[in-house]
Amino acid sequence: MSRFWSPFVNDLVPYVPGEQPKVENLVKLNTNENPYGPSPRVVDAIQAELNDSLRLYPAPNADALKDEIAGYYGVDTAQVFVGNGSDEVLAHIFHGLFQHGRPVLYPDITYSFYPVYCGLYGIEAAPQPLRDDFSIDPADYRQANGGIIFPNPNAPTGVALALEQIEQILDANPDSVVVVDEAYVDFGAETAITLVDRYPNLLVTQTLSKSRSLAGLRVGLAVGHADLIEALERIKNSFNSYPLDRLAIAGAVAAFQDQSWFNQTRQAVIRSRESLAEALTERGFEVLPSQANFVFARHTQRDAAELAQGLRERRVIVRHFRLPRIDQFLRITIGTEAQNKALLAALDEVL
Amino acid sequence: MSRFWSPFVNDLVPYVPGEQPKVENLVKLNTNENPYGPSPRVVDAIQAELNDSLRLYPAPNADALKDEIAGYYGVDTAQVFVGNGSDEVLAHIFHGLFQHGRPVLYPDITYSFYPVYCGLYGIEAAPQPLRDDFSIDPADYRQANGGIIFPNPNAPTGVALALEQIEQILDANPDSVVVVDEAYVDFGAETAITLVDRYPNLLVTQTLSKSRSLAGLRVGLAVGHADLIEALERIKNSFNSYPLDRLAIAGAVAAFQDQSWFNQTRQAVIRSRESLAEALTERGFEVLPSQANFVFARHTQRDAAELAQGLRERRVIVRHFRLPRIDQFLRITIGTEAQNKALLAALDEVL
Repeated sequence: MSRFWSPFVNDLVPYVPGEQPKVENLVKLNTNENPYGPSPRVVDAIQAELNDSLRLYPAPNADALKDEIAGYYGVDTAQVFVGNGSDEVLAHIFHGLFQHGRPVLYPDITYSFYPVYCGLYGIEAAPQPLRDDFSIDPADYRQANGGIIFPNPNAPTGVALALEQIEQILDANPDSVVVVDEAYVDFGAETAITLVDRYPNLLVTQTLSKSRSLAGLRVGLAVGHADLIEALERIKNSFNSYPLDRLAIAGAVAAFQDQSWFNQTRQAVIRSRESLAEALTERGFEVLPSQANFVFARHTQRDAAELAQGLRERRVIVRHFRLPRIDQFLRITIGTEAQNKALLAALDEVL
Repeated sequence: MSRFWSPFVNDLVPYVPGEQPKVENLVKLNTNENPYGPSPRVVDAIQAELNDSLRLYPAPNADALKDEIAGYYGVDTAQVFVGNGSDEVLAHIFHGLFQHGRPVLYPDITYSFYPVYCGLYGIEAAPQPLRDDFSIDPADYRQANGGIIFPNPNAPTGVALALEQIEQILDANPDSVVVVDEAYVDFGAETAITLVDRYPNLLVTQTLSKSRSLAGLRVGLAVGHADLIEALERIKNSFNSYPLDRLAIAGAVAAFQDQSWFNQTRQAVIRSRESLAEALTERGFEVLPSQANFVFARHTQRDAAELAQGLRERRVIVRHFRLPRIDQFLRITIGTEAQNKALLAALDEVL
């Protein structure tokens, strides 16, 4: 604590991202990165921007990227917002759309950045317990609130909600913004972007970090009613005029243009997920049904922290959360076939 | 206004950046970009990062960059903060260090983002009039406040304050954070970073957008006491874990390593500034003494808006602010020698 700090800073509990070890030759399955690189067209597009034009500011509204996303999803450009990763987009959402003096609702087991945003903007939170099978119960979201947010599929569980159930939540909350955080949607769940024209209270966020293999480039987006997007633009333009640099804009446009690379790599991840889930089940794990690029699994007899430690000693890193209800689970990112084999080989030594 | 907006959003007056026209062949002297490209070593360093590693998150703390900056300025790494342009750094400063229920002080004529940050975070502002010669009077900053900020050299005037005067302000405000925004410092003013070890209330911000020719890459920094940096880290880690992408980190490190390119290009800008100021004076302008990469000048007989319009018709864009006290001034970015000639030729037609 310092007398110079704004008083709320002292109580802030920042988010802790999965570690990015500097050691080489790790099997890194702890931060849900895509095991495949980005489209070669992304690299080419960035290459084409890599010149003296770096002396110039980027387009402040990143129109080229917004247009590309709008075209991709069949919405108007005014329905699209972009930011420095979906984390920045989410921060602006909490700030600009969730400060209504009522608690924000989200699942008790979910992306651990949500309570951090509440702390940052002084918003009360009311976490809603997932069912015993770790699914979201739409009935929990029928109560006074200042906003609702959940990932679909949820993280770190991987469990998805059907659009029909999302509509139940939207119908029950005509006066609140309902945010569907689709960081992992491309690995098997259905996007709610198809609903934005029917629900003025729906905002969908996505990221290029997972299914587009661009965690290193920092691009996220939101799609919803133009009124919601306008709030985010006002916040963004009162915070930082150019959150996306020239290279990120160029790369992100190219990522949306290469549909074939996108489909190839996400299908490969989905296939590996199914075979990994099977292999883990054979080894005594209970694996939650995942629509994401990771699985969430607990061993029926072995302690999760010990397993994570044993894997780490064998240079395989997975994520373990010391949190209520899930402290016996491991979240394992889907790697390449070779990485998955290395994981299983290490597990076979540890088990 | 929408019922979904957090109430403060309705009153937000966002910052309006200088326009980034999409027309080719403009003489673009409106956003203080460097007329020279970045160091070739920057391009090489980004090139080396432009590969499949884009699938991986960046280093969340950008340690390589912090270490480089710390070494460059002879401070500890814990005294360095980095962000997505100095605008993001400034936003975190207003949020994390200026919310004390007392007004923040800054010059009445200054970077127009400061009042916007006050609006974003609900902070009262008390602008302090510059003297008639557009210099800052340190005596104005001896009053109860929640924080103090000014650019040095000031923008859009280009007028610099000596370190001695900055120390007067620091000495008078032991309980407030004093932020010296050094966006333009490398073009002739003295950095206050040399004072940070003596003043725990001093925070200095800089950007790579101007003197390092990297407006398109979005990198800014702050240097100060580790306690002040800790507040910024808490905010940053509660907002967005990775505001700097992999390419930006690599490029920024290389920019600080190429001292020779940096000196060559900034000296060229300084030389052009002096000759441009002379040429403008000959043409009937009063030019404020500038230590920045722009000049701020008013014609003794001609209306500034008309001049700006006349230049625009000749494909030369400069910045004109329709604001009290400065609506007869033009802010003209220092271009290459060729651009400055084109500007003067256009002016000769207009005048």
